[in-house]
Amino acid sequence: MRKLRMGMVGGGSGAFIGAVHRKAALMDGEISFTAGALSSTKEKALTSGRELGLPDDRNYASWEEMLEAEGNLPADERVDFVSVVTPNHFHFPVAHAFAEAGFNVVCDKPLVLDSGQAEKLVETVGRTGVIFCVTYNYTGYPIIKQARHMISNGEIGDIRKVIVEYNQGWLATRLEESGNKQAGWRTDPEKSGIAGAVGDIGSHAENLVSTVTGLEMEAICADLTTFVPGRRLDDDANLLIHYRGGARGVMVSSQISTGEENGLTLRVYGTQGGLRWRQEDPNHLVHTPIGEPERVLRRGNDYLCEEAQRATRLPSGHPEAFIEAFANVYLGFAAAVRSRFDGHTRDDLPADFPTVHDGARGVHFVEKTVQSAQGDRKWLEVGDAIPEEQRPAI
Amino acid sequence: MRKLRMGMVGGGSGAFIGAVHRKAALMDGEISFTAGALSSTKEKALTSGRELGLPDDRNYASWEEMLEAEGNLPADERVDFVSVVTPNHFHFPVAHAFAEAGFNVVCDKPLVLDSGQAEKLVETVGRTGVIFCVTYNYTGYPIIKQARHMISNGEIGDIRKVIVEYNQGWLATRLEESGNKQAGWRTDPEKSGIAGAVGDIGSHAENLVSTVTGLEMEAICADLTTFVPGRRLDDDANLLIHYRGGARGVMVSSQISTGEENGLTLRVYGTQGGLRWRQEDPNHLVHTPIGEPERVLRRGNDYLCEEAQRATRLPSGHPEAFIEAFANVYLGFAAAVRSRFDGHTRDDLPADFPTVHDGARGVHFVEKTVQSAQGDRKWLEVGDAIPEEQRPAI
Amino acid sequence: MRKLRMGMVGGGSGAFIGAVHRKAALMDGEISFTAGALSSTKEKALTSGRELGLPDDRNYASWEEMLEAEGNLPADERVDFVSVVTPNHFHFPVAHAFAEAGFNVVCDKPLVLDSGQAEKLVETVGRTGVIFCVTYNYTGYPIIKQARHMISNGEIGDIRKVIVEYNQGWLATRLEESGNKQAGWRTDPEKSGIAGAVGDIGSHAENLVSTVTGLEMEAICADLTTFVPGRRLDDDANLLIHYRGGARGVMVSSQISTGEENGLTLRVYGTQGGLRWRQEDPNHLVHTPIGEPERVLRRGNDYLCEEAQRATRLPSGHPEAFIEAFANVYLGFAAAVRSRFDGHTRDDLPADFPTVHDGARGVHFVEKTVQSAQGDRKWLEVGDAIPEEQRPAI
Amino acid sequence: MRKLRMGMVGGGSGAFIGAVHRKAALMDGEISFTAGALSSTKEKALTSGRELGLPDDRNYASWEEMLEAEGNLPADERVDFVSVVTPNHFHFPVAHAFAEAGFNVVCDKPLVLDSGQAEKLVETVGRTGVIFCVTYNYTGYPIIKQARHMISNGEIGDIRKVIVEYNQGWLATRLEESGNKQAGWRTDPEKSGIAGAVGDIGSHAENLVSTVTGLEMEAICADLTTFVPGRRLDDDANLLIHYRGGARGVMVSSQISTGEENGLTLRVYGTQGGLRWRQEDPNHLVHTPIGEPERVLRRGNDYLCEEAQRATRLPSGHPEAFIEAFANVYLGFAAAVRSRFDGHTRDDLPADFPTVHDGARGVHFVEKTVQSAQGDRKWLEVGDAIPEEQRPAI
Repeated sequence: MRKLRMGMVGGGSGAFIGAVHRKAALMDGEISFTAGALSSTKEKALTSGRELGLPDDRNYASWEEMLEAEGNLPADERVDFVSVVTPNHFHFPVAHAFAEAGFNVVCDKPLVLDSGQAEKLVETVGRTGVIFCVTYNYTGYPIIKQARHMISNGEIGDIRKVIVEYNQGWLATRLEESGNKQAGWRTDPEKSGIAGAVGDIGSHAENLVSTVTGLEMEAICADLTTFVPGRRLDDDANLLIHYRGGARGVMVSSQISTGEENGLTLRVYGTQGGLRWRQEDPNHLVHTPIGEPERVLRRGNDYLCEEAQRATRLPSGHPEAFIEAFANVYLGFAAAVRSRFDGHTRDDLPADFPTVHDGARGVHFVEKTVQSAQGDRKWLEVGDAIPEEQRPAI
Repeated sequence: MRKLRMGMVGGGSGAFIGAVHRKAALMDGEISFTAGALSSTKEKALTSGRELGLPDDRNYASWEEMLEAEGNLPADERVDFVSVVTPNHFHFPVAHAFAEAGFNVVCDKPLVLDSGQAEKLVETVGRTGVIFCVTYNYTGYPIIKQARHMISNGEIGDIRKVIVEYNQGWLATRLEESGNKQAGWRTDPEKSGIAGAVGDIGSHAENLVSTVTGLEMEAICADLTTFVPGRRLDDDANLLIHYRGGARGVMVSSQISTGEENGLTLRVYGTQGGLRWRQEDPNHLVHTPIGEPERVLRRGNDYLCEEAQRATRLPSGHPEAFIEAFANVYLGFAAAVRSRFDGHTRDDLPADFPTVHDGARGVHFVEKTVQSAQGDRKWLEVGDAIPEEQRPAI
Repeated sequence: MRKLRMGMVGGGSGAFIGAVHRKAALMDGEISFTAGALSSTKEKALTSGRELGLPDDRNYASWEEMLEAEGNLPADERVDFVSVVTPNHFHFPVAHAFAEAGFNVVCDKPLVLDSGQAEKLVETVGRTGVIFCVTYNYTGYPIIKQARHMISNGEIGDIRKVIVEYNQGWLATRLEESGNKQAGWRTDPEKSGIAGAVGDIGSHAENLVSTVTGLEMEAICADLTTFVPGRRLDDDANLLIHYRGGARGVMVSSQISTGEENGLTLRVYGTQGGLRWRQEDPNHLVHTPIGEPERVLRRGNDYLCEEAQRATRLPSGHPEAFIEAFANVYLGFAAAVRSRFDGHTRDDLPADFPTVHDGARGVHFVEKTVQSAQGDRKWLEVGDAIPEEQRPAI
Repeated sequence: MRKLRMGMVGGGSGAFIGAVHRKAALMDGEISFTAGALSSTKEKALTSGRELGLPDDRNYASWEEMLEAEGNLPADERVDFVSVVTPNHFHFPVAHAFAEAGFNVVCDKPLVLDSGQAEKLVETVGRTGVIFCVTYNYTGYPIIKQARHMISNGEIGDIRKVIVEYNQGWLATRLEESGNKQAGWRTDPEKSGIAGAVGDIGSHAENLVSTVTGLEMEAICADLTTFVPGRRLDDDANLLIHYRGGARGVMVSSQISTGEENGLTLRVYGTQGGLRWRQEDPNHLVHTPIGEPERVLRRGNDYLCEEAQRATRLPSGHPEAFIEAFANVYLGFAAAVRSRFDGHTRDDLPADFPTVHDGARGVHFVEKTVQSAQGDRKWLEVGDAIPEEQRPAI
């Protein structure tokens, strides 16, 4: 099995998420780091590439240069896909240009800044047929695949209620004023878009619920607050949710919940039982079948479903964590890319990764949340991000 | 110290909460079970009293009979207070009649069925000067007193956010049809009032937040659902809350959350740190001071505040639980009654127990929640249950 | 059902365990506190009795006086049993005298100071036919009854290994020098006997294993240490154990394990699964069936065995704890006493409480442990505390 | 910074630990996988190398071939170190030969099969001056570095007691008969050496205690058992330990503890506080300072020591786990190798990784344990694995 060639846009020295993408992509020996335009600053791009061992002729000063040069290479040399790990406001121009030129794309979340961009990107992906992955990384945990399997298998019956939370406390003070780069762009509407907590982390929560349960939002009522004086985006978001079919939901996401670190949790209650999961203890899933003792399912055991077992690298009790889950997203994407190279059509590809439609739905969700929280702050119909007939197969 | 004489209304054979009240009241040897009218059915009342060892002349066939007979006894023989542990719809007539006659009263929650009754009761208590306690029992946990102390002491700074949950799963099926008595009256609007989950357990959540944080609700947006077909009251309630002064809140209460047993939890996030507590692990309080390691405070240690230490019977590591917390509510009430007997005025009594005003506020909260969830389901101003100047000192 | 009349020896003002015994005995309304000789100091005895509401004619200045006076009362007035809650060195004279006089006895643990006393007591109990209970209170937890049931039912197969721990840290400093009464007598060989940690808490661990698993010790190898300078008894004890039939064991008990409060834990591993339990979280039992997800059994659920359900006062999720477990020991004893009054023979009594034989085995265990830890510190055969044919039926 | 070139011996297709070594070594982009002799079967070696992308001229059919060919390459082409990930019985010949030839070595644990081999290897390493690392991977966890720092810093005072456990249940049945390769060689004395549980996992426990506390064993008393009929090595090991200076220890390691997965846990009790850690929840360390609330330290926070922070890749709340800890061992080794290339002497190298002396001490420990458990099963003096004056600087 030859390694897929990855080109990266963004993720130069000091960037947090770029380094995570590289570790994740390279973990299983299926992907090589072949090319890059690692910063929007030319000099920094080149220095970063050299430090990371890129050959000079694939170490580009800008993404536009990379796009052109890689496009001119023969197919068996050019990068097989591009990873876009820039700040949010660059996602659209970069991802769109590469997709338009026929490159497969991995793009960090949120997909783009607004639903106009999302629709264009979906259209382009649909038309060009490239494989497009949005790194909602938390769906890569094996035990999340188990939860999805159990629900689709009816093991907790019909879902009545979903509580999803994503609580952080790191922005409880005005960290963006202290020179913290991560805090800086995440609280800047020019770089992050119209939402703060709900955009940065609430969108992960939305995707997690959608992936695990398959539920679609019908209506929401949102309460957004900016607690830290001087901050320009919300840092706390609480939502009531009605799902199609009658299930009810609560979503909490916050950046000012002092003492919380990366508290993504999911609880799903069905007519026959419940499931609960905490990202900070990611190898375990609690299943509460009605009338029976609670069960703790642990990653790495034979009693788990095939998808969960396939996404596992270590025996049970040898914990896997964030990077490994992230790597699973890359593996899922890589499988689809290889399958396409092998001649399968888009309707016939493995699709165990978050797609451009997941990304578009996330952008739509953030917009509707902000809209609901403004004005007379009423319940708001959510509607479709992309009409069903226009959604790409992957 | 002489024992206080308790008369009980309700709580005959087979009643769950009546037995709990007796164990709690008698635990510390400060109260004796002296008289009772233990059922609304004459025969059952008398049989129950005999089984429980009441002397025949204090074992009454009805609460009206008890009211008259005890009132005719000399002061040093008659009961010092009456515990009302009937189903909800009897709370008002019984509690009001005894208060009107000058008896001190302990009443189970919810106080009464509507705010009209609540206002009358508050007026009566204020006028007669009796001591009135509503058994919001969860506030009796020592570690809850510690949480209240830390917050009032500024140890977590200004409160920004409160998440309170009370999740149960026992009514996930139509248990009321199977002859379960508890399920029966709790889902019957004639006996329980206008609300289901939010009345039965949401009111505990409301009281817990109020007791621990001192926050007052400004506006709420509620989503009530009845999931189980045929049920006449809500069995799931989710609220967004604005507190006066700017704090935000989320309240979840549910009776259909399969796998949950008695999942009352509280999380409070302030500018300087956070606190969290779970009723099912009641001896521990987690404190997360900003920038420092999380701390786990355990009941029974010298580092706790005086109120928490005073409410403790056993050394640390020897767990206390539900009944002991309930007993603390009785101890707090008994201290006020004794203090009054010693000649202290109402403004000068110890008040470490939930008062008639707590009860009235709970009834008001339930009414506003139901109102918010009906019609156009908008945010609703909460207002005051009882105007501040009309609230009794205790 | 008439209340059983309890007389108490020891447990005057300020005593910790006496107050626990009273709360436990009285919790369920089956027992009345009728008489007492509450201190070895005459004045303190009488004052304590008055404070606790004993009538003057049953408030005795000494246990000898109580023994004589109660013995002279008609059977339907005299106490039905005596609770001995003195420091350890008084257990034998008091318990033996009352048993000899035909009184049923509840005695705190350890039963007596040495195996000579134990043998005499067993002989007396066997001869007089009194009901005798030793308050190894931790066996009163409902979920411990469930563990015992599952093991005897073969649900974890044949037991291979048992790890029991009882870790405390309260004696990590020389607390006995600071006037702490509990620390004082527990570290004094005249009052506590030949062992410190292993006597005070290791004996609970021994009893827990015996009760839950039914295993009998064949040989032990003990390591006892006194860490705190100047202390006269061990404050740390670690044992390797061979059980009859081939199971292996580890027992750890310590009073100097800083940060531990009352860390009694039990883990049992069988050929088909395992069980684990923590006293500080007493309502839960973890069952790990081989090849299946871990299960968490919670007190108060219908899936538990009958003995566990019968020992439960509150619905699941409403935690019960130390005092309630202690009260279950009294209930078990009271059931046997009533059954005897009803004419059942000793071979035909309910026996869900720790008996004089449990007590004698505990004393024997402590002696063997100390012997093993002395001299050349080798493995030591344990032998029988009381030969099987001489053990009382109860 | 140029990448270090790694050659690997063992770890062909299907091998568990070889794949872990590769992921760990390559995770941070500091090491390249340059050469290999991946199996003792020539064909399998070559096929595995091709599958893993080794160039043909560095894909060797045997380790002897690799040794010769790499030795003949110029210094700036040959591998900078060799990773030995074969079954245990090959460790000595391979590691010794490469060290003798001047190659730096990473070797899986246990180092070798007996102390004769260990002494030879230590002598060779001391003489040739190569850098030698034994992958006791659990010491790579950042929070373990924090524990070591706190202890050496006196934060828990003088250590009195250590409880270390390594409980697994995967060999509770005779898995080695079912064709499970891992079970096969681990229960085969020809491949694993003289010990089963204590060799495979007890040695990790020994190393963890030594690394974190610095304590040295003075005497031990071991109880080894083979529970599964037909098995040739122990599958359960329990030890009492005396450490030099007076601390006491208990060590439990087991492969038949049903329900346990990879339960390595450490508890250390000092005069001023305690520490506890669980490998299955590796990002947290509990600190129990005497007289204060328990503290939970979490990886990724600024309050941790520098070594812990340096070993961290992700922000707090984004869990790291087994592979990342393993990668830290490689990073520590790589730092020493680079430092040596930069001209530092052996006495002047960073040494944050387990050395050949750790490995030799582990072998010595296993031998003494087996010796203690045989014959008259008495306490046994442990003595030194390697006299202090003969230990290599690294």
